[in-house]
Amino acid sequence: MTANALINLILNCGSSSLKYKVFESGTENCLTSGIIERIGAPDAVITHNALNGNAVDRTSGEVKNHSAAISAVLARLLGKGGFKKRQIKTVGHRVVHGGKYSAPMVVDDEVKNYLKEVTFELAPLHNPFNFEGIVAAEKNLPGVPNVAVFDTAFHQTIPDFAYMYALPYRYYTKYLVRKYGFHGTSHQCVALRAAKMLKKPLSKTKLVTCHLGNGASLAAVRGGKCEDTSMGYTPLEGVMMGTRCGDVDPAAVLHIMMSEELSMHDMDTILNKQSGLLGVSGISNDLRDIIKAAEDGNERAALAFTMYCYRIKKYIGSYITLLNGADAIVFTAGVGENSPAVRAEVLKNLENIGIITDPVLNRAMVSGREGKISAASSPVKVFVIATDEELMISRLADKMT
Amino acid sequence: MTANALINLILNCGSSSLKYKVFESGTENCLTSGIIERIGAPDAVITHNALNGNAVDRTSGEVKNHSAAISAVLARLLGKGGFKKRQIKTVGHRVVHGGKYSAPMVVDDEVKNYLKEVTFELAPLHNPFNFEGIVAAEKNLPGVPNVAVFDTAFHQTIPDFAYMYALPYRYYTKYLVRKYGFHGTSHQCVALRAAKMLKKPLSKTKLVTCHLGNGASLAAVRGGKCEDTSMGYTPLEGVMMGTRCGDVDPAAVLHIMMSEELSMHDMDTILNKQSGLLGVSGISNDLRDIIKAAEDGNERAALAFTMYCYRIKKYIGSYITLLNGADAIVFTAGVGENSPAVRAEVLKNLENIGIITDPVLNRAMVSGREGKISAASSPVKVFVIATDEELMISRLADKMT
Repeated sequence: MTANALINLILNCGSSSLKYKVFESGTENCLTSGIIERIGAPDAVITHNALNGNAVDRTSGEVKNHSAAISAVLARLLGKGGFKKRQIKTVGHRVVHGGKYSAPMVVDDEVKNYLKEVTFELAPLHNPFNFEGIVAAEKNLPGVPNVAVFDTAFHQTIPDFAYMYALPYRYYTKYLVRKYGFHGTSHQCVALRAAKMLKKPLSKTKLVTCHLGNGASLAAVRGGKCEDTSMGYTPLEGVMMGTRCGDVDPAAVLHIMMSEELSMHDMDTILNKQSGLLGVSGISNDLRDIIKAAEDGNERAALAFTMYCYRIKKYIGSYITLLNGADAIVFTAGVGENSPAVRAEVLKNLENIGIITDPVLNRAMVSGREGKISAASSPVKVFVIATDEELMISRLADKMT
Repeated sequence: MTANALINLILNCGSSSLKYKVFESGTENCLTSGIIERIGAPDAVITHNALNGNAVDRTSGEVKNHSAAISAVLARLLGKGGFKKRQIKTVGHRVVHGGKYSAPMVVDDEVKNYLKEVTFELAPLHNPFNFEGIVAAEKNLPGVPNVAVFDTAFHQTIPDFAYMYALPYRYYTKYLVRKYGFHGTSHQCVALRAAKMLKKPLSKTKLVTCHLGNGASLAAVRGGKCEDTSMGYTPLEGVMMGTRCGDVDPAAVLHIMMSEELSMHDMDTILNKQSGLLGVSGISNDLRDIIKAAEDGNERAALAFTMYCYRIKKYIGSYITLLNGADAIVFTAGVGENSPAVRAEVLKNLENIGIITDPVLNRAMVSGREGKISAASSPVKVFVIATDEELMISRLADKMT
């Protein structure tokens, strides 16, 4: 790139962390990246991957808040031999909940008001921090447009009969209780890539995308548009996750609350933080630990592994069916990209559904490798694709500014 | 039948009702049937279909309790020109929750103790009344064996990875929180019939059975054994029903409870009695009313109808997939047997999944008619089968005694 080329700064603000990546505008080139962890603590850690290749700069110290974190990022990006402020074309923000927004938004007062007034209640654990990142970027980079890219936006094409719950209708009117879905940027990212791998226009594709990380969701995507997804009003619904229960009889939840005299807040914590792989196995929320323990003969770990895969398989079946057949199944994110064991278990005994896995290809597809893992004879292709939410945000923010 | 032929008396006790049928032992002949409604009220109604053909005897009066109800039934059955007490070979009881029991049980003290100690808590709205029926039968018909046939028993073959929830494991140990499934007698009844219609031994069949009544559940049945079902710890989970919500993000339930300051009991009532078709449409829990209103332009009724069908379709897709293909889909119970509109909507656009419906056959299959509604070219057959839980209970009780 030339010294004056424009760049996109992409920010992903969590409650106590800030991930960032810089892309050359108009391209897919990631120029640098990093993460600040333990924001608010006296021993925050900044890990910055320097511009000139592999050098990593790791420093520790106090980072008071998100504004200070962004200042620290800019100090590293704009330092000697680095970028110039005027090169920053746009700042793209990952925002978990977009409420009604079905596309990225250039942030103005109206957008900020809507985010504060509506989405803070819908995503109290995420959106306030994403919002802090926007405010801090405005302060630190006056004049540079901020673009909010929402995890929920890609799912706004889901039809009402799929996003409504069969609850009394007033809860939808009063509290906007409906399925929103999350991980949308990732599902969109891999859907685009899968269409290329299929050598088909996106508009002609039917895909089931499986984002399997510590959080996990699936999406049914027809012609590049999402028709259904497994997460719901919150990221709790759907498949089994690291610490989240996913689908469960709601009456069982009420029964447990009564039996243990739990508050709604306690129960929410149990379902979100103490369930899933951790809750069933009793040992870990990390699938690698679970697989290791299962291999060592731990029966509850083996059960957790099988449950995890079984529940993904059921969603794949649902989604292939509602799409009236799919061109491809896509696995992505930490587990999806790196666990041949999960993919093999999910996809076993599906040859009558049109899915035949090639075990050699499956085992080889790890550590960021992308490609097909289905057998040549498989009517439905299976791909492993590395997701890159920040790249997708950069593309979208670039287009908007 | 000869005057001395043995008979099976089948009882289905609800909280304030008692349905009964009498079958000739060793046969499928239903000799008489009836129902007592409003047990406990001063104006209980007894409707008895007399032995000699179509005559219906309808009387009103006080029926104090289930024991009195059974006395009233026996008075009609054993009256002049009726059966003799010694002809009663067995009394078969529908019992909703069987807990650990995976088959019908001849009732003895051990069975009664287990039912009281374990299942009353698991099914507080049903099992105490089913139990009352057993006690009343013992009192009124000393020496006649009672057989308990459980709605949950057919589902006891579901493997652990399918029946466990991804909740902390201690809730399974402490409270037996797991998927049980219901309508098992009906799923078993239609699976047996479907195998005959397929002209295959049951052990070679793969079926998805859809019991769609006011309550509704699906089952994946391989070789006559259930592998998964949509209802869960309680009959609330799964597809959308008349007044039950079915699957919903559990965090949405907690959020509504907090927002409306609802008790667990209130919320349980809302999810079980005010949701489903009634909650979404705002007009009725009866699908016939919903379809009528939708045809008249009621948008929420149309939404409720589409949601209802969509959610069934998703389960069918899951179950075909986990069975690695199915021989047949079976529709049964009130809605399943009588609503071509529901079947058409559920099954539309599935030709790539191997399901092609014949619209003429579909429209014709109502009012107890049984048969195939799939096109001759459909790889997966679709059957409409009239379920008969009492007949199934009679068969099972007959075998045990």
